[in-house]
Order: sequence, then structure tokens, then C-alpha cells
Amino acid sequence: MKSLTDVLDGRWAEIRREIRAQVADTTFQAPYGFGVEEHRAQVLEQLHELARTGRPRLGFPKEYGGNGDIGGSVVSFEMLGFGDLSLMVKAGVQWGLFGGAVELLGTREHHERYLRAIMDLELPGCFAMTEFGHGSDVQHLRTTATYEPATQEFVVHTPEPSARKEYIGNAARDGRMAVVFAQLVTGGQSRGVHAFLVPIRDENGRPMPGVRIEDCGPKAGLNGVDNGRLTFDRVRVPRTALLNRYGDVAEDGTYSSPIDSDGRRFFTMLGTLVRGRISVAGSAGSATKRALTIAVRYGETRRQFERPGTDEETVILDYLGHQRKLLPALATTYALHFAQEELVASLDELQSSRDPGERSRRELESRAAGLKAVATWHATRTIQTAREACGGAGYLAENILPSLKADTDVFTTFEGDNTVLLQLVAKGLLTSYKEEVQDLSPLATARFVAEQFVGAVIERTAARKVIERIVDAGPGRDDDDALFDRAWQIRAFEDREEHVLDSLARRLRRATPETAFEVFNAAQDHVLRAGRVHVDRIVLEAFVAAIDRCEDAEAKALLERVCDLYALANIEEDRAWFLEHGRLTSARSKALVAAVNTLCSELRPHARALVDAFAIPEQFLAAPIISGPTP
Amino acid sequence: MKSLTDVLDGRWAEIRREIRAQVADTTFQAPYGFGVEEHRAQVLEQLHELARTGRPRLGFPKEYGGNGDIGGSVVSFEMLGFGDLSLMVKAGVQWGLFGGAVELLGTREHHERYLRAIMDLELPGCFAMTEFGHGSDVQHLRTTATYEPATQEFVVHTPEPSARKEYIGNAARDGRMAVVFAQLVTGGQSRGVHAFLVPIRDENGRPMPGVRIEDCGPKAGLNGVDNGRLTFDRVRVPRTALLNRYGDVAEDGTYSSPIDSDGRRFFTMLGTLVRGRISVAGSAGSATKRALTIAVRYGETRRQFERPGTDEETVILDYLGHQRKLLPALATTYALHFAQEELVASLDELQSSRDPGERSRRELESRAAGLKAVATWHATRTIQTAREACGGAGYLAENILPSLKADTDVFTTFEGDNTVLLQLVAKGLLTSYKEEVQDLSPLATARFVAEQFVGAVIERTAARKVIERIVDAGPGRDDDDALFDRAWQIRAFEDREEHVLDSLARRLRRATPETAFEVFNAAQDHVLRAGRVHVDRIVLEAFVAAIDRCEDAEAKALLERVCDLYALANIEEDRAWFLEHGRLTSARSKALVAAVNTLCSELRPHARALVDAFAIPEQFLAAPIISGPTP
Repeated sequence: MKSLTDVLDGRWAEIRREIRAQVADTTFQAPYGFGVEEHRAQVLEQLHELARTGRPRLGFPKEYGGNGDIGGSVVSFEMLGFGDLSLMVKAGVQWGLFGGAVELLGTREHHERYLRAIMDLELPGCFAMTEFGHGSDVQHLRTTATYEPATQEFVVHTPEPSARKEYIGNAARDGRMAVVFAQLVTGGQSRGVHAFLVPIRDENGRPMPGVRIEDCGPKAGLNGVDNGRLTFDRVRVPRTALLNRYGDVAEDGTYSSPIDSDGRRFFTMLGTLVRGRISVAGSAGSATKRALTIAVRYGETRRQFERPGTDEETVILDYLGHQRKLLPALATTYALHFAQEELVASLDELQSSRDPGERSRRELESRAAGLKAVATWHATRTIQTAREACGGAGYLAENILPSLKADTDVFTTFEGDNTVLLQLVAKGLLTSYKEEVQDLSPLATARFVAEQFVGAVIERTAARKVIERIVDAGPGRDDDDALFDRAWQIRAFEDREEHVLDSLARRLRRATPETAFEVFNAAQDHVLRAGRVHVDRIVLEAFVAAIDRCEDAEAKALLERVCDLYALANIEEDRAWFLEHGRLTSARSKALVAAVNTLCSELRPHARALVDAFAIPEQFLAAPIISGPTP
Repeated sequence: MKSLTDVLDGRWAEIRREIRAQVADTTFQAPYGFGVEEHRAQVLEQLHELARTGRPRLGFPKEYGGNGDIGGSVVSFEMLGFGDLSLMVKAGVQWGLFGGAVELLGTREHHERYLRAIMDLELPGCFAMTEFGHGSDVQHLRTTATYEPATQEFVVHTPEPSARKEYIGNAARDGRMAVVFAQLVTGGQSRGVHAFLVPIRDENGRPMPGVRIEDCGPKAGLNGVDNGRLTFDRVRVPRTALLNRYGDVAEDGTYSSPIDSDGRRFFTMLGTLVRGRISVAGSAGSATKRALTIAVRYGETRRQFERPGTDEETVILDYLGHQRKLLPALATTYALHFAQEELVASLDELQSSRDPGERSRRELESRAAGLKAVATWHATRTIQTAREACGGAGYLAENILPSLKADTDVFTTFEGDNTVLLQLVAKGLLTSYKEEVQDLSPLATARFVAEQFVGAVIERTAARKVIERIVDAGPGRDDDDALFDRAWQIRAFEDREEHVLDSLARRLRRATPETAFEVFNAAQDHVLRAGRVHVDRIVLEAFVAAIDRCEDAEAKALLERVCDLYALANIEEDRAWFLEHGRLTSARSKALVAAVNTLCSELRPHARALVDAFAIPEQFLAAPIISGPTP
């Protein structure tokens, strides 16, 4: 259904179509059975091909040969997610993280000197933030960069084994330079984490003096990406190696910054890198779509067990159990797609604006964190289910699902561990984004909540007007048909979020300086839940707004049902909460389960159209189970 | 805590200890970064080493040089599950499936001719049941074996591409003979599926005439096992190639069998092979234990984020969120361990007895099916969680978790697809094992239920007496402390099972011949749930009985708490049902969530002791994240 694809393609439809056309012209060799080195070599080659298309320039500033299209750039990462995810990640490292850090943390001199070479892949680089001992808590990483006024150099140093840079993409084989995050020390004083450009290999690929490079070796997946470890033994870089947009050191060692607080400065720097998380959420979505497309197509042709009263066997997607596995996951994938689209639009708007408000910036970071967590967990779970839904065939590499599972598996813990990210979301909600959202100190949060939190306010998203119109028009009915009433569904999501947040605030208010950690920790499941239900609500609203934009009646009617399934399956899974809190009666709760079953069988005939609408290039679906003879 | 290990080691403690000692003397090279061929070669070599230990003889009859210890043999497969799972699976194919089929489906002539060569691995073989087009529904597989009286031969033939034998372990590289399941045709009449011994390679490893062998290629995991495809082009084997215990063909083509019905005969044959499923459940448990041991040890040393009021960072297992990820899973792993032990004991008893009752046999098959489903889904979920709990480190092959995940992933769909297996369990309960449990026909089930089902009866397991004593002694209290009362917990599990089964029977009774499929299908989620809650109850009872056997007071006290966590986390996850059905008030339901949190923090200090009690040989825990310097 082309009209469905049009709704999905949304604002960046043109880029999506261009990429599909381009992909159709190239050959894609799926890396099944490749050894690590062979896979790495192929991915590097593809990365060079990608550079030649000029597409990586999309997101960079026009004055350096880029296109200034930030949203389009994120969408193009999302589209890469349909193919070999090693390529997506390696591209993300080179242009998103490495290039992004140079652009967003550096200043004119860095831009002029490096951006073109980065865009063209003449200068392959790394993003060296994570250390073995500090991943989630990057504010406390231990690598140091100590300024020496005498030589006007920074000395970059790894003071202990656990401070080595770990899992660094592009480091083991190809990277020539790294953006290294280190504690800046000048005049004997530490100024917090800053980013430095450090050459790690010479032009012949040999490690630079003082730089030790190790290979992380084989991984569960993404073996086309050369992750490595970097250790620095008093490596000297010039003063100008500091990416100095948010903090600078004068020749004499004097430190200056537009932002006073070390913490706030660091989190501002981190915040500029939000595109990475958004891109991960997007490509997790692409991988999920690919897995569902395979599983649904297989489920439509695979038959098993004779259908009584016929001499045919039953198509497995006709079984309710099979529909239950795939269709709510498909509905959620649609919902997340629209939420992603909205997030990309906000990013584009914000990063294109000269002076975005602090609050908008923090809200965007929070949404990016939340959506990344929810989308990647959804990917892990759905791809697993899709594999199982294809039985033994789903276990063969040739049928794609094994690499989808293995490659996306790390998405839940990289670019921010999901558990930590959901805490960030809850923190943002509790503090109305008034504090630095990334500061996780339980004490600061508890104190803030105690002093300032006045009650949860549901601030509706970009879809605000649409949502208000629907909620106001809702009949406020209270029969079983209410389940299918969009206004009822939205209110259920909003009500849940408000209540979870208010009760959490009440718990946290009890904290004293002595008990802050214990109080916060005892409520950690509640904190994570607050983050989660907030994201769920945002996602529902985005879906509702997308339907509102849809002008094709047939597509719109179908999307309404898909949205029902998303909303009701979400409530169903969480119905214990609704029952516990008197939001659902037992009878209504049972009716809800029946409603999800009904929706599954109603959407069953449309399953194929719904996955086909993702318009995944066929060469990425060349799995024998769906292209071979019918089993 | 040695006493804890003693309880876990149970009845086959001696074999477990022997294997641990033997393993300690050998070197184990983890196959990280191996290519497929290298891995296959190593596994074959290890398989030969294993043959030399004589342990594979454990389960075979004494008269052919075996040991007749069926339970011990299953336990030794379970222990193999601590190491490279490719070895476990390849051993399972050779001795469990191939050897088991020859022993249990063949007669004296086959035993004398082949068993020694099978035990010693002089004759590597395959178990060729699954076809591309028929996996779950093996009764309808399409390979034929047609008897020709003139030559006194069977002609084994693959009539269509979807009838090729698929995913056959040991076929792509090493197997010389296969037990091939085919529709036996004699005198122009089909007699249903029987097993035939078919040579597939000559002594030089070349395929036999008429046998086409293909390689399934790389898989998500288990790449040390050479899975292949077999296609037969009118391959001739002598009349004696029929494994003729349950059905024979005389020289003139006359068919005879001790069992009249084709279906019943086939399911009786299948039933003898129940060891395979039990071994899979056991080794899924071993892999789960290994993953949890790694994650718990890591969680005890890894620190992240400063602990307020101290200058130390917090050990991550001190976070409630982290405990929530690992400790209920650990408790469930204990519960499943004891259920497995009980199942192995039943198997041993039954298969050692000359004339086990039909009903006992079917009940064992049902329990094996159910436990296999629950244990393997638990493995998939827990290993996934363990990987995430180790962050980026958990994604590196050197830290073991990636191979555990990838290797066990197929467990949920091989040796019976879990969804199909849970239906078998429900079917057995609904029919009180009076029909052939594997016949999945909705109509037959509905008819039987309508005519004969009188109401669910909780038939307690081997632990019957213990359970009755506890339930009778239960105070019948109804305050929040009741949650910790074992009698309350047992009753909650029993009550749930009874109610789910009764209401399912009510639904199915409505079926008519015309609507049987639709009625059954509309209730499929209910059917699966009935199977699931039955298994959960069996598992709880096994745990309770194991505690009762424990004589060490300290170990016993600890196990009581672990059992509380298993029971309450299980109810918590399912509390929507308990609320919907008036079994829990809102207040009690919230208290339940709090109780699980409390148990997590109470068990936190014992987490290490609980995983250490699994006594996994240290060489299988040689992961840098838990043996390297503290991160």
C-alpha cells in the first residue's frame, strides 16, 4: 500500500526514496560466514563507497561542503540500518561520533582543518570516551590531559589499567585519529572532562609513539567494526588539539569557559552528541522492521498441521499464538517509527536554531534517551521473537535473523545503558528539566524533589493540539467499547504517567542527606517505571498525530487499528498496574485481553501489507526461507 | 557453601563429582573467533576424547558394554552443558538421538551389530527426522520407504524438495549412517512413520550413491556441529535396516506391529526418545547457571557512580535494579534445577522398569515437554539479561556470554518447538493422559473434553507427601505475611492451575465438528497458559521437596528464601491474573511487589554463594571480566 509507505516516509521521504534507489543499484553481499578480518575489510570498502556517494556530508555545515540537513543525516543512518549493521555502526563512528565531536565541540580552526577529510574518509577516526572502568559514569573517567605551558602541549595519559579506552570503534584497525575524552588539568587544577584530538596511527597505519592499541577481538556481532582498546603513555599533543568550543586553555595555561560549572559544561558537551542516540534508536527500528518482514512473510507461507475439515495444512500466521507473537510487536514498531520521526524533527529544529532554550535542549536529550532505551529493548525482544517464529530456519545465518539478533544486541547497552537512560528520563521529569538532567546524584534529585516538585504535569508533545482535540472530543464512555476509544486510551496512558510520577515524588521526598542513597535505591524499580511509562505516552501521542496527518482514507483506517493494537497491547501487558490502582475492573481487564485477540485476528489479513509498507529494499530480504520454494 | 552444592548435586552427585574432576584434568579451549571448519574439527576431536572416557556408555544396556544408568547418562549431558554447547549437542546427536534410536527402536540384531561401534564413535551417525516442510508435525513427514519383496529391500526416497531432511546434526561432515524417519509403504499401503538405518557415507567419507548431502552453512551458534541436509534418490537398504521393535515387515512384505493404530505406534516410538528433550532442558539449565555465575561475579566487583556520603563507587549488584535483573532469575534457575532432577529420576525409574504403565509414560513425556519449554525460554531470557548486566564487556566473545546466547538460542525451537510443547502439556492435562498426548487434532481434543473432562484435579508430583504436609500445616492466614507462607504460595499455584484448566475446558466444550479449529484457535493463548501454569506448579513442588530433603540447617534456611523469591516473583509477574480473578486484592498485590524487592535485598549478600554452589569447573569461567583486574 503505497499510501502507507508515504505516511511512514514522512518529512524525509525524499531522502528515503533516494537511498532506496541508490541501494537498488548496488550489490549487497551479506557477510554470512565471514571471518572477522574479511568482514572488516568489506565494511571499510563499503564505507569508502558510502563516502563517495556524498551522503555522509548531509549533516555537516554548508560552509565546509556539507548540506546542513541534520534530520536528513539521521534518517540516512536509519536507512543504513536495513543493511549490514556493522556498516551503520562504523559510519556512525566516523561521521556521527568522530565527525560530530569535531564539528560540535571544536571551533573554526578544527573545522577548517579536518571536516572535509572526515567527510571524505581521508581521515578515519575514533570516538574515545568509554573507559574500561567508566562507561555509564563518564563524568568520572580517569584519562588525564595535563597542560604544560612550557611546551604549550597537553600530555594525554592513562594513569591506570582501568582507565584504558575500551570498545572504541574504528580503533583496532583503521582509525588514524581519536577524539579522546580526558580530565583537563591546567595549573594543577582539574577542569573536568574535555575532548582532545589525538593522532593514534601514522600514515602507514603504525601506532603513534606512546599509543598502545589492542584489538577487542571477536564480539557477539558487529564483527565488521574494529573495536579496540587505547592506552596513552604521556602522549603529547599541541594546545590546539583541545576541542575548545566549551572550554579553552590560553598559552599561559589560563582556563576559560562560557560555562562555569565543570559538571554543567560536561553535560552540555555531551548533550550536543545526542544525534548518536537518536541514530541508534532509528537503526534499531530498521533492524526490527527487517526481522518482522521476514517473520511475517514466512508466517504467511509456512504451513504446519492439517486444518480440520480441509485437506490443507494451516498457514502458521493463522494461529492466534503466532499472531500474538508478531502483531503486537508490529504495532509497536509502527508506533516507535512515528515517535522516532517526531524526535528527528525536534532535533533538526533545535540544532538548526541559533539559540535553542536550555529547557528544550534538555527535553530533547531526555526524549532521545528514553526512546533509545525503549526502541532498542523492543528490537532485542522482537528480533528474538521473530527468530523463534521462524523455527530452525530462523537459526541459519542465510536467513538473516541470526545477524540481526547478534548485531543489535549491544544497542541496549551502548550509547548509554538503557537502565541508566530511563533513570535520566525520570530525573528530567522530576526536576522539570531544571537541573542538569544527566547528573544522577540521588541526593541532588531527592533534595530538588523535596523542595520544588509540585506534581506531575503531562506536557503534551508536538502533537499537543491533535491530542487535545481527540481527548476533548472523547465521549468519556465507560463500557467495554471504550477500550477502542482513542481518548480513553490516551487518558489511560496520561493517567498512568501522572500517578507513577506523583507517587515516586512522594517516596523520594522522604530522603534525608543520610538516607538519600537508600531511599533512591529502594525506589529504583519505580524510577525506571516512571521513565518507561513517560516514553510510552510520548510514543502513543506521536502515533496519534501521524494518523491525523494521513490523508489517505484506507491507510488511515488501517493505522487506526494498528494504533489500537499498540495502545491495548501496552495496557494489557501492564494491566496489573491498572487493576491495582483501580483503573480497570476485573471484567474490563479480561475484556482488554479479548480485545487484543480480536485486533490480532482483524489485522492478520493486513500483516503483509503492513510489513511491505516499510519498503525495505528487496536485496536486504534475500533470505531463502522467504524467497525459496514454499516450505 | 558445600552443603548447598550437595543438595544441588542430589542423587547423581557421584557422577557430577567425577565429571568435575575429569574436566579439571583436561584443557578446554573456548572456540572464540574460530571459523566454522576449525570449530567443527575441534568438536569432533573432543567427541573422540569423550568416547575414550567411556562415559557415553553410561546409558546403554549392560549386555552391550554399557552401564544401564539412564539417569546418570542424562546428568552427564547436563554437565556437558557447562562447556562448549556444540560438544553437548554433537554428543547428544551421536549417543542420545542416533544411539538412542538404534537401542530403543531397534531389536537385538541392530544392538549386536551397531551399539558398540556407536558408543565408541567408530560409527558416527545422524538422526534424520525433521524435514524442511515438516518440523513440528513430524507425523506427516513425506520421505517414503517402500518395501520391494522381490529384492527384499526398502527404497528410501525424497519425493519433493520440501521433504528433504533438514538441520540434521552430524550430517554435513562426519556422519556415516543415519536413522531416517520415513513413511513405511508395503503392499501399496502406508503404515505410518518408521525409522530406517541408512548409510550416508562410505568409509572414505564420500556420500553413498543416491544420497545428496548439503551443508546448512553458518548458524547463529553451535557452529561446531555440522548440520546438513539429506536428500534420497531411491536409495536401497536391506529389509533389516528397519528398526523393527514397534513394526516389522516380513520377507513377503506382510506388515506386523504390536500396536494397531499408526498414530499411536508413531507416538509410542517418539515417546521412547524423551531423553533428548530432558537432556536439552538440563543443558539449558547449565548454560543459564554459567551465565548467571559470570553476571553475579561481575556485579559484585564492578563499581559505577559514587556512593553518596562515601568516596567509593557503588558495586552494581547493590542497586535494586540490578538485583531485580539477576536474583529472581537465579531463584528460578534453582527451582528448575530441582524440577529437572525430579524429572530425571522419573525417567530413570520408568525406563528401567520392564512394564511402565501407559499413563506414567505419557505423564513423563508431558512433563519433559513442559519443562523443556519453560527451561529453555528461561535460558534465553536469563542469558540475555546476564549479557546486558555485563554491559559492553558482556558483548565481547572472550567473556563467554555471546556464545552462551547464540548457542542456546535454538533450544526453544529444536527438540520440539516450545509453543507446540506447551500445547502438548495442556492437551495431556485436559485428557488426563488418556489419549495419545502428541495428537494435536483440535477436534479430537474438543470432543474428548466435551465428553470426559470433569474438572481439573491437581495431581501432586513425587513430592506429594511433603506438599500435603506443608499445605495442611499452613495457617491459612490472610495477612501480608501470608505471602511468605509456603502453604499460601503452593495453594496460589494450585488454584491458578485448576482455574485456568477448568475455564479452558469450558471454552473448548463449545466446539462442534464445524467450529473445532476456530474454537481451539481462539483459545490458543489460554491453552498455552494452561501448559505454562501447570509446569510452574510442578517446578515449585520440586523445589519444596528438595528443601525438605536438605539436612544442613544453614543451606536449608537459605533455600527457603530462594524458594520464596521464586514463588513470589512468579506470582508477581502474573499478578494481573490473580487480581482479575479476585485472588489478590490491590493492597496485597502491591505488598507482593514490595516483598520481591525485600527478598532481593535479603538475598543480595548470598548471591555469590548461590552461584558458587553450582560448582561450575573454573576453566569454564575463564572470562577476563571476572578473572581480570577489578574494573
